[in-house]
Amino acid sequence: MKEKLTVVKIGGKVIDQESLLDQFLKDFSQVDGKKILIHGGGKIASEKGRQLGVEPNLVEGRRITDKATLEVVTMVYGGLVNKNIVAKLQAKGVNALGLSGADANVLKAVKRQVKTIDYGFVGDVTIENVNAPIFNNFLQSGLCPVICALTHDGQGNLLNTNADTMASIVASAMSNTYEVNLIYCFEQPGVLEDFEKQIVIEELTAKTYSIYKDKGVIADGMIPKLDNAFAALNNGVNSISIGAFDQLERLINRKSGTQIL
Amino acid sequence: MKEKLTVVKIGGKVIDQESLLDQFLKDFSQVDGKKILIHGGGKIASEKGRQLGVEPNLVEGRRITDKATLEVVTMVYGGLVNKNIVAKLQAKGVNALGLSGADANVLKAVKRQVKTIDYGFVGDVTIENVNAPIFNNFLQSGLCPVICALTHDGQGNLLNTNADTMASIVASAMSNTYEVNLIYCFEQPGVLEDFEKQIVIEELTAKTYSIYKDKGVIADGMIPKLDNAFAALNNGVNSISIGAFDQLERLINRKSGTQIL
Repeated sequence: MKEKLTVVKIGGKVIDQESLLDQFLKDFSQVDGKKILIHGGGKIASEKGRQLGVEPNLVEGRRITDKATLEVVTMVYGGLVNKNIVAKLQAKGVNALGLSGADANVLKAVKRQVKTIDYGFVGDVTIENVNAPIFNNFLQSGLCPVICALTHDGQGNLLNTNADTMASIVASAMSNTYEVNLIYCFEQPGVLEDFEKQIVIEELTAKTYSIYKDKGVIADGMIPKLDNAFAALNNGVNSISIGAFDQLERLINRKSGTQIL
Repeated sequence: MKEKLTVVKIGGKVIDQESLLDQFLKDFSQVDGKKILIHGGGKIASEKGRQLGVEPNLVEGRRITDKATLEVVTMVYGGLVNKNIVAKLQAKGVNALGLSGADANVLKAVKRQVKTIDYGFVGDVTIENVNAPIFNNFLQSGLCPVICALTHDGQGNLLNTNADTMASIVASAMSNTYEVNLIYCFEQPGVLEDFEKQIVIEELTAKTYSIYKDKGVIADGMIPKLDNAFAALNNGVNSISIGAFDQLERLINRKSGTQIL
C-alpha cells in the first residue's frame, strides 16, 4: 500500500491577510503525514507591483508577465510570501523548505508560445517536468516542500506559472509513489451551484461538470481550476477536494467542499 | 581524509550587474567538488526599498531593519537575487537550491538585543545554529546550497543577517565534516595596504592584522569582514581567501587576493 501524501494549494485572501494565513498554517501544520504546500500570491504581487510602478495586466485572469512583472512576482512569490510561510511553518513544527521550480530543478517549464496573446515570461508545465525523485528525497528527509508559483526554463530564466496547474501536475507526478490527496483551498466553500445562496456542489464528475458548464453555472475562473482538478484525477491522484481555506481538516476528510470524482 | 568543500560569499557590485553576475556564476559553476554560495544583495535592496518608499538606514555599514525594511530584504534577498542566481546556476549545470535560514531550518538566529542601537529585525548567528546535518544531506544529494542573508528566530519571524558572518559560521560548522575553503569575493583585489596604488596584503596573520589596524591601514567595513575571516580560521576552516569576484579560480588556488593565516 502506498504511503499517503497531502498536496494543498492556497491562493487569494488567505495569503494577503496575516491572521487568516496564521490560522491556515496552524491547520496545515496539524495535517498528519507527508505534505506539500503550493501557493500563489497574486494580490500582494499586484499591490507591490503598483507601488513599484508596474501595473498588473491580467487577460482572462492570467497575468501578462513582462520583465518588470517577472521581477515583481519573483520578489513577492519567491521572497515575501514563500519565506514568510516557511518561517511561520517552522514555528509550528513543520520543517518547511521553500522552493521555486528552479530550486533543485524541481519543476522545469516551457515558455508559453505566442499565439494570439503574448503572455511574456509565463511557463507551462507537464507531469514529465516534475522532479519526483527530489521531492521524494525531501519528503523522506522529513521536509515539507513549500512551492511558489515560479518555474524556470533551464536556460537561466524564471517563469511565472499558474499555481493551480502546478498543484495538479505535482500531485499527479507524486501519485506514482504516493496515495495523493489534492486539496484546492480558496475563498468559496466549494464549487457553487448558486453563488447568492452559496450552495455547494458536493460532488462533481466529468459528466456533471460538462452539464454545469453548458448551463453556465460553472464559468470563468472556475473552469481552468476544475480542468486542473480533473487532469489530476485522470493522472492517478487519489482524491481531489475544492473548498474553503478555513476548512482544511474537513476538506481532507471529505466532509466539506466539492469532491472531484 | 576529509572531502573538500568550497564556501564562497559574494556581495556588492557583482550582484547588481547582470553581466558581472553571469561571469561570476560561470566561474563558480566550474569550481570542482561540493560547494556552497552565500550572497547579500544590499544595493538592490536599497534601490527597491527607495522605490517602495522605504529609505535605507545604515549605521556603521549595518542596515537598521524595521518591519518595512525586512519586507524589502525578504523580497530582494530571498526572492529576486536568490531565485535568479539559482535559475542561472541551473542553466550552467549546477543543481542549486536556494535557501534562507528558515528553509529546512538551516540557520536559526537570535534577534539582536537593543543596547545603544536598535537594529530591528536583525539576527545574530553562532556555529551552534548551523544545521550541518541538513547541509550535508543536500550536498550528498548533489545539491549546491545558495544561501541568502536571511535567518529566522524559530518563532515565525525572519531576520536580516550579515552575509559575511553567515559565510564564516557556515564554513566553520561544516569544517567538522569537510576540508573547507572559504572565499570572500568583493570589489577589491584583496585587503589593501594602499588603496590608491591598489597594493594587496598577500598574507594576513592575527598579529599583522592587529598591527595594520593600529596603523589605521585596515579600518571601517574591512574590520568586521576580517573578524569573520579570523573567526572561521580559529574554528577549523582550512583556508580563507579574500579578493576580487572576477578572480574566483585564482582565489581558490591561493594565487590572488589576501590569505588569512
